[in-house]
Amino acid sequence: MSEKIKIAVDAMGGENSPKKVIYGILDNYKKNKDINYNIFGDKNNIEKYLPNNYNKEIFKIFDTKNKVLDTDTPLAAAKKGKDTSMWLAIESVKNNESDVVISAGNTGALFVISKLNLKMIENIDKPALSALWPNKKNFNVVLDLGANIECNDKNLIDFSIMGSSLFKALYPNEEPTVALLNVGSEELKGNETIKKAYQKLQNKKNTNFNFYGYVEGNQIMDGEVNVIVTDGFTGNIALKTAEGTANFIVKEFKNSMTANILGKLSSLINYKNLKKIKKKLDPRLYNGAILIGLNSPVIKSHGSTDHIGFSNSLDVCIKIVKNNLIQKIKNNINK
Amino acid sequence: MSEKIKIAVDAMGGENSPKKVIYGILDNYKKNKDINYNIFGDKNNIEKYLPNNYNKEIFKIFDTKNKVLDTDTPLAAAKKGKDTSMWLAIESVKNNESDVVISAGNTGALFVISKLNLKMIENIDKPALSALWPNKKNFNVVLDLGANIECNDKNLIDFSIMGSSLFKALYPNEEPTVALLNVGSEELKGNETIKKAYQKLQNKKNTNFNFYGYVEGNQIMDGEVNVIVTDGFTGNIALKTAEGTANFIVKEFKNSMTANILGKLSSLINYKNLKKIKKKLDPRLYNGAILIGLNSPVIKSHGSTDHIGFSNSLDVCIKIVKNNLIQKIKNNINK
Repeated sequence: MSEKIKIAVDAMGGENSPKKVIYGILDNYKKNKDINYNIFGDKNNIEKYLPNNYNKEIFKIFDTKNKVLDTDTPLAAAKKGKDTSMWLAIESVKNNESDVVISAGNTGALFVISKLNLKMIENIDKPALSALWPNKKNFNVVLDLGANIECNDKNLIDFSIMGSSLFKALYPNEEPTVALLNVGSEELKGNETIKKAYQKLQNKKNTNFNFYGYVEGNQIMDGEVNVIVTDGFTGNIALKTAEGTANFIVKEFKNSMTANILGKLSSLINYKNLKKIKKKLDPRLYNGAILIGLNSPVIKSHGSTDHIGFSNSLDVCIKIVKNNLIQKIKNNINK
Repeated sequence: MSEKIKIAVDAMGGENSPKKVIYGILDNYKKNKDINYNIFGDKNNIEKYLPNNYNKEIFKIFDTKNKVLDTDTPLAAAKKGKDTSMWLAIESVKNNESDVVISAGNTGALFVISKLNLKMIENIDKPALSALWPNKKNFNVVLDLGANIECNDKNLIDFSIMGSSLFKALYPNEEPTVALLNVGSEELKGNETIKKAYQKLQNKKNTNFNFYGYVEGNQIMDGEVNVIVTDGFTGNIALKTAEGTANFIVKEFKNSMTANILGKLSSLINYKNLKKIKKKLDPRLYNGAILIGLNSPVIKSHGSTDHIGFSNSLDVCIKIVKNNLIQKIKNNINK
């Protein structure tokens, strides 16, 4: 690409910020030389973690003193005004000064302030929160994970188009297969909304994806489909139930470790292994969530991730911009 | 108790039936001498697994040739007529010849045939499918797990009353705490139905339970509450997502086993341990599901359980009858 990708980074959100954010940026820059990082936050604090002679074009700091706290309600965060690092980072994509915005801060606030600042993509009614879930083979996209409590059939179809566009932006060589999350695989199962969406998806032509039909909760991670669509209420409960289940298993395993020293040692190795699997399983830990449906992409990195996790989330930003996610959605929605 | 408890058993449902059902009954009888088992199924086949001189009063066989298959749709199962082992077992509680009915067969069929034969408890609008989920301390009751795709606030309140009555029947020494499954713990979160149910439960007096408020999916297994109430759509997806997550973790763990022989050996021990935890986690494997809201209790033992699992499900039947679950619900619904 001739022009550099510009990423607006809210440096003040999440645990251990801005340290992990800046170290994440430095790690990411090692892999990607054609990126400019527009960094929003407390300049004095941010510069502690940058080398003395840092390149002020590549790492451009926008000094802000105000910030959104993790404990702020979305409304309180929005009311803090237009001078928080989160607000200004979002405004930067609104004003076309950046191509994408990322924050590890308060999800609800990021969602509300993004909606206040950014327009919806034409013909999309609601934005959705999507994330990458691990499966046997790789990852799949699941949405909505909590942005919209109540959805109609049009919303679910929009999510199918947006989710498959996102999958294609992240995995350009694969053809996405989309499924609706339901309580059974038969055509007659489910509520009226989901049945209407099913019928319309069956009859839809010229889509950018294959429609698989319904999947049940136990199939989310089996790798048969790439994009799983649900309303935000169900999606959020599925996500948190998966998290609770993983926590429960790891804790029970810890409690069950054998008592003798050799047994304990081998169990300890396996326990660490198991914790790694649990971490892989938490979709919010992997690459964070992606808010799609707005005219600019908004990336949420997990609050408790470390600098490597933040660097991975920056990779997602880059892929989304390089592979024209927003343009893909616009093309597909009007087919 | 002066009069013996009579359990109607559909011997022909689930894998390895009637063998595992009959061995389950024999195991259960060892622990409970005051029970009569009314066994419905193919007499010749059933008698293979009973001792030659079995007591025909305690193990009373009702010879049936027709049976519901696991592959039958609920409607097809009901249309098979009134001479299947499942239908006749249910009819036996309808005619007061048994106190409770149990089957390891087709869940959908059991649900539909029960609804055709048994009346609802007065003032309860919909029956619910409930199960015991493991938590850090013990078990909690979760309902509805799929019987009702769409629920109103009255249904959720009925489920609270029924679920807490069930918990009290199973754990007579504990005071049940009830929560609604939601996407956040704040009062303003969730859909209209759940918010209405929250308000009514907050204001309700003389209940047989404490109302905790909302819990999220990751709290189902943390042991803070005893009864978790949700609509059948969300409950079913939560249940299946937990199952899928557990399967995923166990498989990933298996794949990650260390390569050298000593490492492999210790991992193998831990793998078996992990599979045990996974089994504990599957609520349907533990004691099966309980259909509540009908005038007689209907117990579903898991189709793939073994004779010990079936024997445990028989224990649940006995507790429910001994502790007057149906009468408890009737008393509580009219408060």
